[in-house]
Amino acid sequence: MKTVAVRNFERAPLEIIDALGELGVATVHEAQGRVGLLQSYMRPIYSGARIAGSAATVIAHPGDNWMMHVVAELIKPGDIVVVGLSAPNTDGMFGDLLATSFMAQGARGLVIDAGVRDVLDLTEMNFPVWSKAISAKGTVKETVGAVNVPVVVAGAHVVPGDIVVADDDGVVVVPRESAQTVLKAAEARVANEEAKRAQLKSGALGLDIYIMRPRLADEGLVYVDKLDELS
Amino acid sequence: MKTVAVRNFERAPLEIIDALGELGVATVHEAQGRVGLLQSYMRPIYSGARIAGSAATVIAHPGDNWMMHVVAELIKPGDIVVVGLSAPNTDGMFGDLLATSFMAQGARGLVIDAGVRDVLDLTEMNFPVWSKAISAKGTVKETVGAVNVPVVVAGAHVVPGDIVVADDDGVVVVPRESAQTVLKAAEARVANEEAKRAQLKSGALGLDIYIMRPRLADEGLVYVDKLDELS
Amino acid sequence: MKTVAVRNFERAPLEIIDALGELGVATVHEAQGRVGLLQSYMRPIYSGARIAGSAATVIAHPGDNWMMHVVAELIKPGDIVVVGLSAPNTDGMFGDLLATSFMAQGARGLVIDAGVRDVLDLTEMNFPVWSKAISAKGTVKETVGAVNVPVVVAGAHVVPGDIVVADDDGVVVVPRESAQTVLKAAEARVANEEAKRAQLKSGALGLDIYIMRPRLADEGLVYVDKLDELS
Amino acid sequence: MKTVAVRNFERAPLEIIDALGELGVATVHEAQGRVGLLQSYMRPIYSGARIAGSAATVIAHPGDNWMMHVVAELIKPGDIVVVGLSAPNTDGMFGDLLATSFMAQGARGLVIDAGVRDVLDLTEMNFPVWSKAISAKGTVKETVGAVNVPVVVAGAHVVPGDIVVADDDGVVVVPRESAQTVLKAAEARVANEEAKRAQLKSGALGLDIYIMRPRLADEGLVYVDKLDELS
Amino acid sequence: MKTVAVRNFERAPLEIIDALGELGVATVHEAQGRVGLLQSYMRPIYSGARIAGSAATVIAHPGDNWMMHVVAELIKPGDIVVVGLSAPNTDGMFGDLLATSFMAQGARGLVIDAGVRDVLDLTEMNFPVWSKAISAKGTVKETVGAVNVPVVVAGAHVVPGDIVVADDDGVVVVPRESAQTVLKAAEARVANEEAKRAQLKSGALGLDIYIMRPRLADEGLVYVDKLDELS
Amino acid sequence: MKTVAVRNFERAPLEIIDALGELGVATVHEAQGRVGLLQSYMRPIYSGARIAGSAATVIAHPGDNWMMHVVAELIKPGDIVVVGLSAPNTDGMFGDLLATSFMAQGARGLVIDAGVRDVLDLTEMNFPVWSKAISAKGTVKETVGAVNVPVVVAGAHVVPGDIVVADDDGVVVVPRESAQTVLKAAEARVANEEAKRAQLKSGALGLDIYIMRPRLADEGLVYVDKLDELS
Repeated sequence: MKTVAVRNFERAPLEIIDALGELGVATVHEAQGRVGLLQSYMRPIYSGARIAGSAATVIAHPGDNWMMHVVAELIKPGDIVVVGLSAPNTDGMFGDLLATSFMAQGARGLVIDAGVRDVLDLTEMNFPVWSKAISAKGTVKETVGAVNVPVVVAGAHVVPGDIVVADDDGVVVVPRESAQTVLKAAEARVANEEAKRAQLKSGALGLDIYIMRPRLADEGLVYVDKLDELS
Repeated sequence: MKTVAVRNFERAPLEIIDALGELGVATVHEAQGRVGLLQSYMRPIYSGARIAGSAATVIAHPGDNWMMHVVAELIKPGDIVVVGLSAPNTDGMFGDLLATSFMAQGARGLVIDAGVRDVLDLTEMNFPVWSKAISAKGTVKETVGAVNVPVVVAGAHVVPGDIVVADDDGVVVVPRESAQTVLKAAEARVANEEAKRAQLKSGALGLDIYIMRPRLADEGLVYVDKLDELS
Repeated sequence: MKTVAVRNFERAPLEIIDALGELGVATVHEAQGRVGLLQSYMRPIYSGARIAGSAATVIAHPGDNWMMHVVAELIKPGDIVVVGLSAPNTDGMFGDLLATSFMAQGARGLVIDAGVRDVLDLTEMNFPVWSKAISAKGTVKETVGAVNVPVVVAGAHVVPGDIVVADDDGVVVVPRESAQTVLKAAEARVANEEAKRAQLKSGALGLDIYIMRPRLADEGLVYVDKLDELS
Repeated sequence: MKTVAVRNFERAPLEIIDALGELGVATVHEAQGRVGLLQSYMRPIYSGARIAGSAATVIAHPGDNWMMHVVAELIKPGDIVVVGLSAPNTDGMFGDLLATSFMAQGARGLVIDAGVRDVLDLTEMNFPVWSKAISAKGTVKETVGAVNVPVVVAGAHVVPGDIVVADDDGVVVVPRESAQTVLKAAEARVANEEAKRAQLKSGALGLDIYIMRPRLADEGLVYVDKLDELS
Repeated sequence: MKTVAVRNFERAPLEIIDALGELGVATVHEAQGRVGLLQSYMRPIYSGARIAGSAATVIAHPGDNWMMHVVAELIKPGDIVVVGLSAPNTDGMFGDLLATSFMAQGARGLVIDAGVRDVLDLTEMNFPVWSKAISAKGTVKETVGAVNVPVVVAGAHVVPGDIVVADDDGVVVVPRESAQTVLKAAEARVANEEAKRAQLKSGALGLDIYIMRPRLADEGLVYVDKLDELS
Repeated sequence: MKTVAVRNFERAPLEIIDALGELGVATVHEAQGRVGLLQSYMRPIYSGARIAGSAATVIAHPGDNWMMHVVAELIKPGDIVVVGLSAPNTDGMFGDLLATSFMAQGARGLVIDAGVRDVLDLTEMNFPVWSKAISAKGTVKETVGAVNVPVVVAGAHVVPGDIVVADDDGVVVVPRESAQTVLKAAEARVANEEAKRAQLKSGALGLDIYIMRPRLADEGLVYVDKLDELS
């Protein structure tokens, strides 16, 4: 690994980022063709947060959070820090002191493929974190990693400046270049869903709304009245 | 697998179902002899819900939620939809649109051996779900499964019409034929526990209430005053 | 295993225990040199509790909670019951009746490397539990284990009388003999952190506060302006 | 649970069982419509075994192998003992003594949703076992379960007399009533595969043999010459 | 996801690939700075294989192996097929028929972040596979993915044409552009290790060979003669 | 943690150690009352090895194998090195160079609650290792741990000088003080098993040999002839 810290990278316009954030993870993920989702073991430390931001990235080593101080200086307001590990680890690499620093620099949250601690303080500070574990296990500052380079986090590839959207359903990454396109697709999707929701609420069935009956029959679904007709 | 949807199955009387629901999972599970429990990885998406209902069942394939629309039509008020997978999967097979439809048809909740999404919406809608994972990963509608046939869910065998009880402790299944018997055993158990609770609260010991001391001695438990008497 | 119950063991003074409890798990763990932490799969059944107490210990067998009744008699006010298993198990070995008894005897909480049930009741009773699982699966009372002997719990070795501190970040164990020393180190740490927190909040960087820049350069961290300067 | 041991159940003809065994797990599983597979954590203790037999079933409790002695008496030559647990457990519930007994009664192997021990001896005895774990942890004989009743094992529902097929790919269960039908489908499948294998070996492509190209185009697969044509 | 199949990508010279293969995973991984390793759950289906090749990549959906037929046509002799999934899955997406086809096209092996089946046949065919699971669960051919685009596999980012090295220690990926540099570093490392091995074999200590004693003292390691000197 | 290396500790006589080794893990574990077993995720890197030795212990940090060089100097012929981690980790902390050194110092094997690499070389060298994972991920030498102090490894507490027995069934630890007693109990057990094995082989049933029938009836086991008698 190149042990490097990159000072600058391009970010998407904040109005696009914020619009994606309002739409939420499930919608954005569908709108970009069901890719870019981090694995489902990434969970928020408290429920109800929904954020979006530009990814400032970190590659850290197990049990070592030194690079978190390096990235702190390079955060721009509106960023979300995204941390991948060089090997699986659940140590508590982030706590209330670093959160204080990240907030002071304008970070909107943290996504970390490792552990986090001081979760009660972080909840009170209203600083949202998605992590693999909660662990009080502290870390050393001995080995240099990298900051603002491409990184794999929980099975997703994240490039600095990609848009990260995170809520109670998980975390999704949108490549910066596709942000505008994905936003449009997501907004169309939401509009369409509104209409469907009203129909479903009134008792109409998805089978009819989406005209599924003929294809179900084609694919071999058979209806019977009672289970014992089966044998 | 027979790709079939069964329209009808027998259900237990609602008053028995509701009575079981009020007793909760731990009590019902004990009362039927410590069987029928789904594995403990099945967790509620929010805490505090306690429901019971008749199982309407689904067998679905990984990454495919087509059968959820088929079961929607066959739900009767008071049902809980119970979904088993043909292979392990954590995709988000259920979200707020399907929940809107299920609620409109009278479903009381969902038990799914896979993932679920839109959990913030589901919480606001007060639609309880017990699942293996929370994941924004959407699904296709390509492969036909089965509806209202026997299914294995999280290690338990569920037949359509079985009574499902679910709360913060997990999910238990009661065969329809034993519902009345289990209810009686559970009610006796609760009555008995009430008396015990008062005794324990006043400082009496289980050792004495349950007359455990002689059997503990028989089985070889020895009391010593200090650890260093042991060597 | 010696099937024994030890009646007495030395406990640390309550004022030291309480002081450690107020400092919390992450601070205490750091202050004693990053050891003594239980593995991060041990989670509280509800958030917001922070307790400390003297460890009263249990070795139990899978699916058998008989020893919980034996320990109940030996609890002194201020104790936390700490339960290790002779083999991995997630059964619900503890519920509201035992909690009623433990509270009546003065226990402050439970740490158990297995499952727990009646979690809604326990939450209402305000009896905090850290466990490996939540499971309604009940247990038998057939096999004798041991009480108040050294035990391994979630990867940590606990001796009766050790101080247990538990909060939303996890559980840490402090040997009774080191309690005073660890408390002093922890208090010094907190005082130091207060000052740092203020600096970080005002926008100062850890890089400067901790004088990290020269060592980062020594260890090979290179700054570049843009990612494409790397190739 | 009814604490019962059932002496008799119907078995399929041995020639059908043996024919299914020769076809192997993957083929049989496909032939019956991709159902009946135990979860993939069930692994053989040594490689190269391929067996089939009638399921004699056991429900056992965590850490308790008493029922293994009860089933031993009820084994008929050609049976495979199939053991489900009332709660997850990895204790070594079976070793060389029980294997000696099972072999003497004519059992062909063991499928157990828990641990096994003496694996070196079992390998030398050529007694195949598929298990969830290997563990030297022994068990007690304290709690009664059930023998030859329906049981859930590693996510599959097994009825006594069902045909179990097991090899290096895992374990599959065929309902006794469908054995003949599944065998025919499996044999047809194998015949068809032989022809395909020769074609593929000679360099022909599945795309052409299975006439996939038009449907791939319909479903939206686009070919490009170089990755950079994509943007 | 762009549903695309890319026909061509650049490959490294075979002599470099083969040289990396001979050095093995651990050496190559160290030589490129301890990055590029797939997570350790990726295991070979049989031991003793050591291969290297150019990555031909696939993105597949859970339970769907359609893209395996698409990549078969695009394999060049010396390639290793590398398969990432759009969501976690353990289905057996690859068996002896596909292996016959891949071998006929010149593939050296398969690395798949899912399951594989027919492992006894694959072993006899001498076709090495590294996978997340062994499972007889078959798959459908319903949903289009992508071929020869960048993909995340078991936590590593793989670009078509990257060099994959795999042996009993796991799987490592070397970017095509760094292949020559990594090879040189790896060869230097091996030469250095040879000398060290002889010294260690003769009883010399790493403490002296690597001159570790002064730094150990600096970092605070203290030697005592007996454990009880510690208190 | 005290960062200390202890030069000397008492060891059991080699003839006792070797006798325990010949009896194997399952027998020794039973003979000492079913305690002392490491968790079942600890697996040998190759099958067929059975060793016993005195525990020389290490506490290491995630991703850091520095202490392995410190322990090398303190190994006495007949020792098994036992490594615990301060936090969960799967990095490959041990390979063929360290194995060469350990063998030169007289070590009989390694038990490590982390990863190991160069497993093909270690197999050829006939140096047995029980580990949590196989991983090519190398480690740094930055943080001081401890050597020859008590340590928790895979859920077991190991004191330097304890006897470690390891084979295909797992790893068990016998306290040095109980070695003689456990050996006698184990030998008695083996003698007893020999007689039982012959009886079982001839077709006698455990039900009769161990006189289980009356107690089974007492505990409520009921025999029926057919499953349908149950309802």
